[in-house]
Amino acid sequence: MPQYSDIDRLAIRTVRVLSVDQVASANSGHPGAPLGLAPAAHVVWKQLRLNPSNPNWINRDRFVLSNGHACALLYSLLHLTGYDFTLDDLKHFRQLNSKTPGHPEYGLPGIELTTGPLGQGISNAVGLAIAQANFAATYNKPNFTISDSYTFAFLGDGCLQEGVSSEACSLAGHLQLGNLIAIYDDNQISIDGDTAVSFTEDVLKRYEAYGWEVLTVEKGDDDLDSFSEALEKAKANKEKPTLIKVKTIIGYGSLQQGTGAVHGTALKPDDVKQLKKKFGFDPEKSFVVPQEVYDLFKRDITDPGKKLNEEWDRLFEQYQKDYPDLGKELARRLNGDLPPNWDEKLPTYKPTDSALATRKLSQAVLEKINFELPELIGGSADLTPSTLTRWEHAIDFQPPSTGLGDYSGRYIRYGVREHGMGAIMNGIAAFGANYRPFGGTFLNFVSYGAGAVRLAALSGYPVIWVATHDSIGLGEDGPTHQPIETLTHFRALPNIQVWRPADGNEVSAAYKMSIESKHTPSIIALTRQNVPQLEGSSITKACKGGYIIHDVEDPDVILVSTGSEVSLCVETAKKLAESVTNKRKVRVVSLPDFHTFNRQSKEYQLSMLPDGVPILSVEVAATLGWGNYSHAHFGIDRFGVSCKGTGAFKFFDFVPEGLAKRVEKVIEFYEGRKLYSPLNRPPL
Amino acid sequence: MPQYSDIDRLAIRTVRVLSVDQVASANSGHPGAPLGLAPAAHVVWKQLRLNPSNPNWINRDRFVLSNGHACALLYSLLHLTGYDFTLDDLKHFRQLNSKTPGHPEYGLPGIELTTGPLGQGISNAVGLAIAQANFAATYNKPNFTISDSYTFAFLGDGCLQEGVSSEACSLAGHLQLGNLIAIYDDNQISIDGDTAVSFTEDVLKRYEAYGWEVLTVEKGDDDLDSFSEALEKAKANKEKPTLIKVKTIIGYGSLQQGTGAVHGTALKPDDVKQLKKKFGFDPEKSFVVPQEVYDLFKRDITDPGKKLNEEWDRLFEQYQKDYPDLGKELARRLNGDLPPNWDEKLPTYKPTDSALATRKLSQAVLEKINFELPELIGGSADLTPSTLTRWEHAIDFQPPSTGLGDYSGRYIRYGVREHGMGAIMNGIAAFGANYRPFGGTFLNFVSYGAGAVRLAALSGYPVIWVATHDSIGLGEDGPTHQPIETLTHFRALPNIQVWRPADGNEVSAAYKMSIESKHTPSIIALTRQNVPQLEGSSITKACKGGYIIHDVEDPDVILVSTGSEVSLCVETAKKLAESVTNKRKVRVVSLPDFHTFNRQSKEYQLSMLPDGVPILSVEVAATLGWGNYSHAHFGIDRFGVSCKGTGAFKFFDFVPEGLAKRVEKVIEFYEGRKLYSPLNRPPL
Repeated sequence: MPQYSDIDRLAIRTVRVLSVDQVASANSGHPGAPLGLAPAAHVVWKQLRLNPSNPNWINRDRFVLSNGHACALLYSLLHLTGYDFTLDDLKHFRQLNSKTPGHPEYGLPGIELTTGPLGQGISNAVGLAIAQANFAATYNKPNFTISDSYTFAFLGDGCLQEGVSSEACSLAGHLQLGNLIAIYDDNQISIDGDTAVSFTEDVLKRYEAYGWEVLTVEKGDDDLDSFSEALEKAKANKEKPTLIKVKTIIGYGSLQQGTGAVHGTALKPDDVKQLKKKFGFDPEKSFVVPQEVYDLFKRDITDPGKKLNEEWDRLFEQYQKDYPDLGKELARRLNGDLPPNWDEKLPTYKPTDSALATRKLSQAVLEKINFELPELIGGSADLTPSTLTRWEHAIDFQPPSTGLGDYSGRYIRYGVREHGMGAIMNGIAAFGANYRPFGGTFLNFVSYGAGAVRLAALSGYPVIWVATHDSIGLGEDGPTHQPIETLTHFRALPNIQVWRPADGNEVSAAYKMSIESKHTPSIIALTRQNVPQLEGSSITKACKGGYIIHDVEDPDVILVSTGSEVSLCVETAKKLAESVTNKRKVRVVSLPDFHTFNRQSKEYQLSMLPDGVPILSVEVAATLGWGNYSHAHFGIDRFGVSCKGTGAFKFFDFVPEGLAKRVEKVIEFYEGRKLYSPLNRPPL
Repeated sequence: MPQYSDIDRLAIRTVRVLSVDQVASANSGHPGAPLGLAPAAHVVWKQLRLNPSNPNWINRDRFVLSNGHACALLYSLLHLTGYDFTLDDLKHFRQLNSKTPGHPEYGLPGIELTTGPLGQGISNAVGLAIAQANFAATYNKPNFTISDSYTFAFLGDGCLQEGVSSEACSLAGHLQLGNLIAIYDDNQISIDGDTAVSFTEDVLKRYEAYGWEVLTVEKGDDDLDSFSEALEKAKANKEKPTLIKVKTIIGYGSLQQGTGAVHGTALKPDDVKQLKKKFGFDPEKSFVVPQEVYDLFKRDITDPGKKLNEEWDRLFEQYQKDYPDLGKELARRLNGDLPPNWDEKLPTYKPTDSALATRKLSQAVLEKINFELPELIGGSADLTPSTLTRWEHAIDFQPPSTGLGDYSGRYIRYGVREHGMGAIMNGIAAFGANYRPFGGTFLNFVSYGAGAVRLAALSGYPVIWVATHDSIGLGEDGPTHQPIETLTHFRALPNIQVWRPADGNEVSAAYKMSIESKHTPSIIALTRQNVPQLEGSSITKACKGGYIIHDVEDPDVILVSTGSEVSLCVETAKKLAESVTNKRKVRVVSLPDFHTFNRQSKEYQLSMLPDGVPILSVEVAATLGWGNYSHAHFGIDRFGVSCKGTGAFKFFDFVPEGLAKRVEKVIEFYEGRKLYSPLNRPPL
């Protein structure tokens, strides 16, 4: 057990003062939690295995600040440990385009995850721990411990109250993730004041019920030894994740310590001064770090970490010799590369191939690529037989003792926990090693995980939501399960792909684009019901996000559509071309992903949806959003109905006759008008 | 304690067979849970206080089927109890526009809540229980027990796994809701098979940790007496909500009982036959109800309930005499009316009034109307000092024993539980008595509660989300907290209002429209930062959802905008009108709610946004969705930045010079084109 010296205590005071200085310089931020958590953070960091000169070393320990508002603490530690965070960076806390934004952002050196939205970080940490367990089970060999890192997460009352953390932590208990250690800052204060106003549950008992080991440190403000002891105990327990409750005083050292006033507001100048004095610092100086503290961090953290990394490098060198195949695969993954020509495994289809539900076609993709891509790890939120996300002979990711699988398994039984699944996928992706996590649920219930989807997009985690039952076509389950707003919702999110493939080739394209994305998550919306294989679809074309799937010369109208409605459009177009009484020339554009299409050249876009022709969107979902692409919109701006899927399509008139009627109306309405494509607009 | 006769057992078998018949007739649905839960349901229903001829009787007990997929069970019981559900209705299970859709839908006789999306029903039930406690504390008087009803909820493993239920049930424990009884169908099966694959936590221990009483019934399939005993014990505990775990066999009586195969698929015809035979029914007949069963339900449930309702009516008559003021208020609320002229209390503003944040202006509204509207009950997800949702001298809704408030209080400390808050609000609204619940959080975190928002819209619960910090204007907290896609997301949802008011008058309008909505929820998006009071705004005009706030003759361009950007548009328009080098005539349209604007006549809409003039949208959020209203879109299709709010506006060029530049570009781009308003499109 480590002993703590006066220099350790000086280091803790330094972190406290440095954190207060950051918040004071911005006159914005959260001083309370850094002041309370500095001792625990010091003890945790002193035993972290990390190498600031190689922040992505795969066998580093992960540190997650789930209470991301305490980021001044993290920035202080990153600076002291030698990450690329200068004192000057700290001085620009919460300034435009600084390295020290209001909440930690993934991609900055040493920052493992974007945190701040409460409940996410701890749930991401479960994902990190799953990834580590899978990674170790896949690559460790006798005498070759490629991976044995821990995940440490700090979290506060807010994170514990959020349901997403309940979901993820219940699963973590089930999965017996002994590599996960969560440190709960029990400071009794949240924004509304004393936690007694709303949060009086017995947290430790709850976590025990989840199957966690639970420990308490009574004096988190100064009893370093007790905390260190708890930490060692937690690390020694390889069968259970551990929650260590640390009782702290929020804003320790401030005149307002122990009150809500120190949570989210900079300390007053006088308060800062007395605090510095109390902690032995010059009250007139800011951003001061005693050299002994730098030396301590170097000696106890940075240098040993660097050494461990070097040892690991040698180990991996030998590993590649002793296990050439695995070594090659691992080197590829660590390099962030996909196997060359992996996409040749993607199935392609001819129009004569059977009509199939796109969820079935998705299953066919997973069957083909799972062996090729060991980085593919996924599951379903208790909808495996519906989302069809499990390949044959998949091994479940389960504690070996359950007899249900083992940690090398790549199929995760998430339970009915969509938000937890989303956050866990984010954590798996953030682990590195090229992991491509996917998770299945109904499209409508991706919304339960909206908070995690947003963070995937913001952070750039390449996760894949396999979102089946994507429309009224799901039928009898009815309006509670039929998405209307969902596609528009996620299409409005930056840095995401929202694929709604029309047939098998488009499904393959959606997977190709999703798996090849390094920094963009995807949602793949899939039908429950069968769709035909279309003439004119191809992986290459679909990879542009939009393309002409059925063309005519000099069209009277252009239909632009996605997913299951594309075949309806093509069928209607063909009928209208042959109609005796009502002949019409109809082009059909398939637009499986708005975001990918938006990235194409304006020229390409306008060649699909040009000036001069009325453009009609056709999608069994909200029309909002289509105005950016089409003049008129055939959609559903109400909730769905409970009956057979074909009945629902008929009810909303999404049948060839119904669509033909709209085509006619649109042509008549715009007759004689000179129309401009909605895409023909100025870039602003 | 009730004794159960052979007729009771016949009734249970009848419900089992009737439920199987429904699923069989649709060849779709969930037979497993109804078969397993029929005994528990029978015992619960036999002691329910309800009156089928007056389904909205305020002192009825509430029955919530949180595992809504088991709806065949509920429809059977509603039929037997004499609600307006005929055998013919049951025969049309899951058929288009039937009364028996795939999941229970609010508004159908005797159905208290729309359920099916897992976790929602039990969380709504917490809302029902809160409403009952508040209602009783407000109106009960010595010798006048206006309200003493219970809320009973059935739920399964899925509901327990969803984080929303964790949030709501933790709060229910804190609030000591003794009027809430949840019955957990512990059948060990979910869609992925045995719950052992993902859900091995100790549920009862978790609920104990929340502060609930927990009970177990070992033989839920036939031990009616034990279950009844547990139920009585639960009812007797007035200090704690109770969770009764009932061990059942899913699909009891089927050849496939106890397996996942009976969860969500109709039983095979042979299985149905043997089941009917086993239960003493003619295997060749369907939808058969023995007269003794009808008689039992009439004698034990319907008649006593009717009598109790009549007694209550007499009590209320006397109450109105003894407590004329309260009686009048209560009669008004039960009638679903707002106080006459309540809206005269809404503050109005002149352009000379101070600039204020719209969250501050929202607080002013709550200060003014809270006394007028006892049906207003709300709170915040641990952001009270930020969302400004608490009026002065508000009493907290708390168990009196805590000393923090009492049950007559109308301010709810939700804790950091947005999804739970949303679901609880839905339950409060569904209680009746004209409740208008509101809940405060940052706009970005309304997304955490998307599942509940959707159900509010689908069901028509008039709840209000007070969604502050509505844009990059929130500043330093940065991109994790700055919504981009959120407005578009909810604007794409049917049956909701998404207000983004520009000033004080528009805030008042948003509240007027939200509170006067009987069947539509609202989100009111509010700024953190100050906005000026605008010339030309008024409550009346804003209540149309869109109106011209700044006009010129023969405009060169029309700006259409919402919230904090409207004043920017007006300022820019004025500057351009006076510009020497660059004079431009600019109309500004304020569009505080798309949905309300969409309900206006096409004529009105086109008088705002007519043909012939380029229309430019201006909003610091995703541009997707604006194409339905404008030709060009000035917005933010990336994530935000961490710095001061003014800095963020400047960074994205949302300043008069930046906007003027876009105006110029738009005018130049469209020069010489004959433009049509995007609103000038055919109705389809």
